[in-house]
Amino acid sequence: MAKKLFDYQLDETVDGFFLLKDAEVRVAKNGKKFLAINFQDTSGEISGKFWDASDQDIEHFQAGCVIHLKGKRENYQGNPQIKIQQMRLTRPGEPQSVQQFVEHAPLKTSTMEEQLNTYVFAITEPNWNRIVRHLLNDLHADFFSFPAAKKNHHAFAGGLAYHTLSILKLAKAVADQYPHVNRPLLYAGAILHDMGKTIEMSGPVSTTYTLAGNLVGHIVLIDEKIVETCQQLKIDEQSESVLVLRHMILAHHGLLEYGSPVRPHVMEAEILHDLDELDASIQMMQTSLSHTEPGTYTERIFAMDGRNFYRPSNDQTKGAAPSHD
Amino acid sequence: MAKKLFDYQLDETVDGFFLLKDAEVRVAKNGKKFLAINFQDTSGEISGKFWDASDQDIEHFQAGCVIHLKGKRENYQGNPQIKIQQMRLTRPGEPQSVQQFVEHAPLKTSTMEEQLNTYVFAITEPNWNRIVRHLLNDLHADFFSFPAAKKNHHAFAGGLAYHTLSILKLAKAVADQYPHVNRPLLYAGAILHDMGKTIEMSGPVSTTYTLAGNLVGHIVLIDEKIVETCQQLKIDEQSESVLVLRHMILAHHGLLEYGSPVRPHVMEAEILHDLDELDASIQMMQTSLSHTEPGTYTERIFAMDGRNFYRPSNDQTKGAAPSHD
Amino acid sequence: MAKKLFDYQLDETVDGFFLLKDAEVRVAKNGKKFLAINFQDTSGEISGKFWDASDQDIEHFQAGCVIHLKGKRENYQGNPQIKIQQMRLTRPGEPQSVQQFVEHAPLKTSTMEEQLNTYVFAITEPNWNRIVRHLLNDLHADFFSFPAAKKNHHAFAGGLAYHTLSILKLAKAVADQYPHVNRPLLYAGAILHDMGKTIEMSGPVSTTYTLAGNLVGHIVLIDEKIVETCQQLKIDEQSESVLVLRHMILAHHGLLEYGSPVRPHVMEAEILHDLDELDASIQMMQTSLSHTEPGTYTERIFAMDGRNFYRPSNDQTKGAAPSHD
Amino acid sequence: MAKKLFDYQLDETVDGFFLLKDAEVRVAKNGKKFLAINFQDTSGEISGKFWDASDQDIEHFQAGCVIHLKGKRENYQGNPQIKIQQMRLTRPGEPQSVQQFVEHAPLKTSTMEEQLNTYVFAITEPNWNRIVRHLLNDLHADFFSFPAAKKNHHAFAGGLAYHTLSILKLAKAVADQYPHVNRPLLYAGAILHDMGKTIEMSGPVSTTYTLAGNLVGHIVLIDEKIVETCQQLKIDEQSESVLVLRHMILAHHGLLEYGSPVRPHVMEAEILHDLDELDASIQMMQTSLSHTEPGTYTERIFAMDGRNFYRPSNDQTKGAAPSHD
Amino acid sequence: MAKKLFDYQLDETVDGFFLLKDAEVRVAKNGKKFLAINFQDTSGEISGKFWDASDQDIEHFQAGCVIHLKGKRENYQGNPQIKIQQMRLTRPGEPQSVQQFVEHAPLKTSTMEEQLNTYVFAITEPNWNRIVRHLLNDLHADFFSFPAAKKNHHAFAGGLAYHTLSILKLAKAVADQYPHVNRPLLYAGAILHDMGKTIEMSGPVSTTYTLAGNLVGHIVLIDEKIVETCQQLKIDEQSESVLVLRHMILAHHGLLEYGSPVRPHVMEAEILHDLDELDASIQMMQTSLSHTEPGTYTERIFAMDGRNFYRPSNDQTKGAAPSHD
Amino acid sequence: MAKKLFDYQLDETVDGFFLLKDAEVRVAKNGKKFLAINFQDTSGEISGKFWDASDQDIEHFQAGCVIHLKGKRENYQGNPQIKIQQMRLTRPGEPQSVQQFVEHAPLKTSTMEEQLNTYVFAITEPNWNRIVRHLLNDLHADFFSFPAAKKNHHAFAGGLAYHTLSILKLAKAVADQYPHVNRPLLYAGAILHDMGKTIEMSGPVSTTYTLAGNLVGHIVLIDEKIVETCQQLKIDEQSESVLVLRHMILAHHGLLEYGSPVRPHVMEAEILHDLDELDASIQMMQTSLSHTEPGTYTERIFAMDGRNFYRPSNDQTKGAAPSHD
Repeated sequence: MAKKLFDYQLDETVDGFFLLKDAEVRVAKNGKKFLAINFQDTSGEISGKFWDASDQDIEHFQAGCVIHLKGKRENYQGNPQIKIQQMRLTRPGEPQSVQQFVEHAPLKTSTMEEQLNTYVFAITEPNWNRIVRHLLNDLHADFFSFPAAKKNHHAFAGGLAYHTLSILKLAKAVADQYPHVNRPLLYAGAILHDMGKTIEMSGPVSTTYTLAGNLVGHIVLIDEKIVETCQQLKIDEQSESVLVLRHMILAHHGLLEYGSPVRPHVMEAEILHDLDELDASIQMMQTSLSHTEPGTYTERIFAMDGRNFYRPSNDQTKGAAPSHD
Repeated sequence: MAKKLFDYQLDETVDGFFLLKDAEVRVAKNGKKFLAINFQDTSGEISGKFWDASDQDIEHFQAGCVIHLKGKRENYQGNPQIKIQQMRLTRPGEPQSVQQFVEHAPLKTSTMEEQLNTYVFAITEPNWNRIVRHLLNDLHADFFSFPAAKKNHHAFAGGLAYHTLSILKLAKAVADQYPHVNRPLLYAGAILHDMGKTIEMSGPVSTTYTLAGNLVGHIVLIDEKIVETCQQLKIDEQSESVLVLRHMILAHHGLLEYGSPVRPHVMEAEILHDLDELDASIQMMQTSLSHTEPGTYTERIFAMDGRNFYRPSNDQTKGAAPSHD
Repeated sequence: MAKKLFDYQLDETVDGFFLLKDAEVRVAKNGKKFLAINFQDTSGEISGKFWDASDQDIEHFQAGCVIHLKGKRENYQGNPQIKIQQMRLTRPGEPQSVQQFVEHAPLKTSTMEEQLNTYVFAITEPNWNRIVRHLLNDLHADFFSFPAAKKNHHAFAGGLAYHTLSILKLAKAVADQYPHVNRPLLYAGAILHDMGKTIEMSGPVSTTYTLAGNLVGHIVLIDEKIVETCQQLKIDEQSESVLVLRHMILAHHGLLEYGSPVRPHVMEAEILHDLDELDASIQMMQTSLSHTEPGTYTERIFAMDGRNFYRPSNDQTKGAAPSHD
Repeated sequence: MAKKLFDYQLDETVDGFFLLKDAEVRVAKNGKKFLAINFQDTSGEISGKFWDASDQDIEHFQAGCVIHLKGKRENYQGNPQIKIQQMRLTRPGEPQSVQQFVEHAPLKTSTMEEQLNTYVFAITEPNWNRIVRHLLNDLHADFFSFPAAKKNHHAFAGGLAYHTLSILKLAKAVADQYPHVNRPLLYAGAILHDMGKTIEMSGPVSTTYTLAGNLVGHIVLIDEKIVETCQQLKIDEQSESVLVLRHMILAHHGLLEYGSPVRPHVMEAEILHDLDELDASIQMMQTSLSHTEPGTYTERIFAMDGRNFYRPSNDQTKGAAPSHD
Repeated sequence: MAKKLFDYQLDETVDGFFLLKDAEVRVAKNGKKFLAINFQDTSGEISGKFWDASDQDIEHFQAGCVIHLKGKRENYQGNPQIKIQQMRLTRPGEPQSVQQFVEHAPLKTSTMEEQLNTYVFAITEPNWNRIVRHLLNDLHADFFSFPAAKKNHHAFAGGLAYHTLSILKLAKAVADQYPHVNRPLLYAGAILHDMGKTIEMSGPVSTTYTLAGNLVGHIVLIDEKIVETCQQLKIDEQSESVLVLRHMILAHHGLLEYGSPVRPHVMEAEILHDLDELDASIQMMQTSLSHTEPGTYTERIFAMDGRNFYRPSNDQTKGAAPSHD
Repeated sequence: MAKKLFDYQLDETVDGFFLLKDAEVRVAKNGKKFLAINFQDTSGEISGKFWDASDQDIEHFQAGCVIHLKGKRENYQGNPQIKIQQMRLTRPGEPQSVQQFVEHAPLKTSTMEEQLNTYVFAITEPNWNRIVRHLLNDLHADFFSFPAAKKNHHAFAGGLAYHTLSILKLAKAVADQYPHVNRPLLYAGAILHDMGKTIEMSGPVSTTYTLAGNLVGHIVLIDEKIVETCQQLKIDEQSESVLVLRHMILAHHGLLEYGSPVRPHVMEAEILHDLDELDASIQMMQTSLSHTEPGTYTERIFAMDGRNFYRPSNDQTKGAAPSHD
């Protein structure tokens, strides 16, 4: 089986097919153009520079292409990079499909759908159940294919659904442990909380923010969808149960500074916020640690206040990267 | 003509009809109940204590009653208060109507409506014009009767419309001076920016926050109304012009910390935010200064970081309180 | 069965035995002394004032006494209070034991011990296991009787062990869900993280901070105990596994501002911090909500940034106060 | 008529006369020297690199020279730049005057003087009027030629007077709208508020900060000038009217963090601060937006918290750059 | 010799002459007027309440009077207070002079003058020396009689000069230890740094802030005096040595947030700021600790972030209050 | 005598022996490897780049080598650098010893030991004296050879002892001036406060942080040593005098944000914190100013909020660099 990008050791010769995630034209100090590239496969991304790019090269090698690469795995200021020796587009009979190079959630879509359904069943409040089902139906394809973020945590295809599911599993543990928790409310809020990202972002590949994302933001975008859904399903949008559900989503960033227009004032909204942060943190730490040798530190993680994390020498638990099926 | 509350000098005998704005039952240090009262008429509010309140007193003297009061204008820790000597409910033939004791905007409703219309005419972008007219129509009564806030600035009947109008006048001056400003966008945003307060607050008298106000907030509440309006008027709610208009409202608090889910990223949204703050500040300073003797300081204004303001000795401009028609 | 403090309705006559949690001598505005009292039983605390206290009264009614009280359940500025009509020390044959009036953890000590043991078994790293057992043994009595804090969350007898156990249950759910988590490390850190409070605080009743608590603090106090334990057990205190364990405790407040001398730089330390906050928050919200009528708000919770929480009208989950066995 | 710098499209050949705003000697990665240049004309600035600079080149091409340039308009990491093909000093008969390449305020000096005078007339308080006239006279040349800042807003020749005039126009609108505003005070404060910049900065071209600017700052520098003026004009500098005027200038940055030694405690000082910020913000947004295509975002504006601003697709108002006479 | 206020033990009968530092008329909960008094002598201040004050009492007992008091030393919420039994104005032959009740610096004025002179001699830069002498001469009486602050540190008569002298002594130690320090600059800055307080504050007794203090502030007020002095002494006020001296004063609060218009950018300015804070902190801690029993904590000191300080049980050094000559 | 690195003027030819402080392999834009070097001798550090490094070069030129260098002193973006013309390892008979190129404290170790002893004698409290002596003995070699920090202040061999001694001298001046200061406590705390750095850092050359440094930190590391010492010396570690001493060290960073687990609550702890900051600041300013021409500014000092400092034109005091013996 073909080697993955992160299987190559320092100074080893790289030879294989990869996706060009980014290929940006820049001008070198000597005045010539080059391409600043990110190569991608399911093991992650590594950068490289294609020097002295001709106009034809620039036209051929665009983000989203699959290419064949020969080169050398080097280090540049502590980060891995590829020194490109030869690069060409793929030929007939060689891999063409972008899908096989993109990182995916560690669970299949069908598995995630099934697991999600068990949580939907547990939403016993009828209005919340109908709203959740309606929106899951409406935004189904995007919900299961989008990442949870452009970068940082769960920035892979299917990441939105996977992150949602992780929160639901934590939510179940919390609801089992604390009997005062309103389980249907917590589940409904968890499922909807980030669904606005399907409108805020452009899609699972080469993700950018939409104008609606920049000017309105995913929190308000999904709130509007809930209100629309109420009108279509003839649910009174001013009823207390709808207000409380909307509050779950509006407050889930926890602090106004993080973009929530209101802070949590319902217990389940506070819990949803906490679990959202907990899952995102663990996911970011796990990803970084799985690329880190025992006895050394991860790179600094921007979204965790720039902290780095130590992987203890004898810690076996972080040894294997999460398996991708 | 009858003397107003703020016409009485220190140690003068008070004798007249007033509104009980608040009448809260408390227990004194000696164990007996008393009423902590705020008397109100159009000149403002002054507190007083009704000692040794019987159960009957408590039942009679409730917030919202008009009463006849005899007492003495005193000072308590720097603030005016009334020492109550005699207090009774009004009798037939005496003033009963709450309206005449409540502070109103310095302009008549009809005047405000007229002035507002000239700004609506200037909204030449058809979708914005239709959305603004529809919502002005829909929320008409509340828009012209609600205060702009529970306390702080424009906390009087009609304050919401009056504050909106003040901003529009400043907006006109800005649009006249800076030709790059999109006048229709600035006007449309100004008219809608605080309209959600008609849903967030309970009404013009004894104002409290509604559940929707606490759990959703006026910014998102009016955003939802704009989306609904688009659906009713068959305007594409995802069109750029609607997104930009919604952004005007969503961003008008300027900072995330102040409850806007997004910061201003459109020039007119930044200007609207600045004018909103400017008008609120001037209104608060004017109100405090008009109760302040030349050569002394106002009380500390909570919403302006607790600063007090000096009224210069020879400053004639702040002499008269704003006239109430 | 005797009525509890919180069973009495507004204006109902109170008649029963209670603990004087505090009884502070103050001087009234009229110059006479009175006692500012907090009455306590297992349902919570309510304040009251004993007016015109004689020197003998002051001598008799001291914090820690059980008394018999007749009075009336009133409200003072939104908070419940007791108007004292008659108060006396208990007589022979009447309740004397402080224990039956003090709020306890909802689990029996023996149950908590048993449950805790299952987690200790799961600490498969031998040094961590020995350190944990040694300190649990050493501080056993205090660990199971102390509160987790002087006020705020888990401020009841046995609260420290109960809070520790709650975190362990959450930790199990997290370790089950995320295979990269080092379970023995997370459990060991969770058990030790607040154990320094047995040195920081004076005890389970009328809790105050010790000098060591004020000048050193519970985080460093337990760190020192770990180091001592290593010396006694001949474990190399500079070994990586001990440093990592100490880091778990030192970093568990998450931020330097909250008193941790280092921020979390090990994944399990970050998770421990998150779970500590999650359990404390839920506990505080549950306690407040269980005293709050459906359709109303709790009082503002100081340790949650002064936020209040809404108990939805139709929310059955928060109906019953947590049962005390 | 000759093309301006910003008239050239991407990849177009540049051929014309420009000012060298900066020409800094640096060492390339290959060890050879090059000049990092900013070319300037009235349409703005674009950077370029002059590779392999000889000692003679370095001597010739100094900041402040007018040169003839042949090159190509390219992009480097999102910013426009010129790839230099040929560059030489101008010859007799070719443009030599720096003035025609420097960006100027959009109004002629004589126009600004005239307009300013109408505001001076309206300062009816005799002391303020005399102080303002005296300082305008004293610092006349610099006041009308200096920029308002080294970079950020109004960083062009005449920017200081132009910014002052813009604020005065806003001040007039505010004074017309709010009758409590002391118009003479607001005008006098507006005229003087930034006049210290003529001492703080070195001049209109290649602006740097003076030692007095760094160690004392423009706020205190002009305050000192006011005090000196009082002594020369025999005005009592401790009189209330002078103290209030000085306060206008001292407080105009609004917050201590922004370098004001006192916060505004006079209504007109607060208003001056607000209008100063409003004009600076609009100027920065207008400048950026006029270089931005409809349907795209400006670059991030450092002095506005690094925000970028969207220029709506159909927004005609921002189409034309401000005309330079 | 007569007992001082702080010599009386709890519950002891007070009988002696004291100064009324404040005597504020308030209204009691029972509606009657009382005087909230602070009694003062050189040992400090203690509060008391004069109940049921008649109009004549109010007229007689004003701030600044010396009175004869009989009463009892009590405690009110942890703070000492006097229960007044009898109070009357002094009669002929009894103490009348305010001076003997006011707290003074622990050094005589003549001693402070002498000590200060030795530092002035060491200012070998002629301009700085002349400026310092001129201002010391000009503001001599106030400089040696004013407090250094209205409350917090050195809030006693002569406190300004005493605080200045303490800083000079520390400055000498620093200049002796670090040879790079410009001693004349540090001494000149130290002497002038707080001299503006003689204009900012009303005087040594019943100190309030002047209008100039509120609108301009002591930092800029003394800066202006330095500029005036330069003009009178024909020293070029724009010379580097004067700019650097002015910078010492302008920057001495260290941070813009603390009211300095510029941060320290000269080494001696940074040192002056540090020594200013160090002396103020020690003075506040010493004062509080000298009123605190060994083995207990001081009250919380507002100007030190509300911290309290522990006086160790066996610490003899803090036993005696600073002696007053 | 041989020229030092900082003796060479701009464009002068460098020819001499230096230490390679760092020699990091990087990849140039043209794809070839180069070494990013810091040359060091006792006058400081200057960077340089060794282009087109062969594998043999990389192997030879490693951090810690002494080399012979020919090159040219240039400037790169405002910072001095060396353009390398020729570089080789030293030959027999040429300088080999790293020690003579490393910057040392300005005092000899023996002098520092002697001076320190006089302060140890003054610690008259027996327990503190024994603890201090024991730890000084235990960590003797490292205490006198380690720097006080990896970079910023006192980052030279012997810097830890030198910094400690400077604080002690300031402490003596303070204790002499303020009689309430507990001199033995202040001295003992000063000697121990940074001793944990001998465990936190790897050593005096090429200093890095140890795992214990990163996970525990020097404050807690020395606290643990104090506790151990108590056990060995049979001193009760819970006695008040030990708690107070530990508090001195634990609180010496002043603020929780700076890594102290408790803020100072003992007067001497507050003073120690202030003197620590004062000495570090002066040291950083002196070092920068001694490399700065009169009439210009230092580079920005990161650890002083990025401020730069002006060296006045006529300031002779900062002329000479501190002498190294």
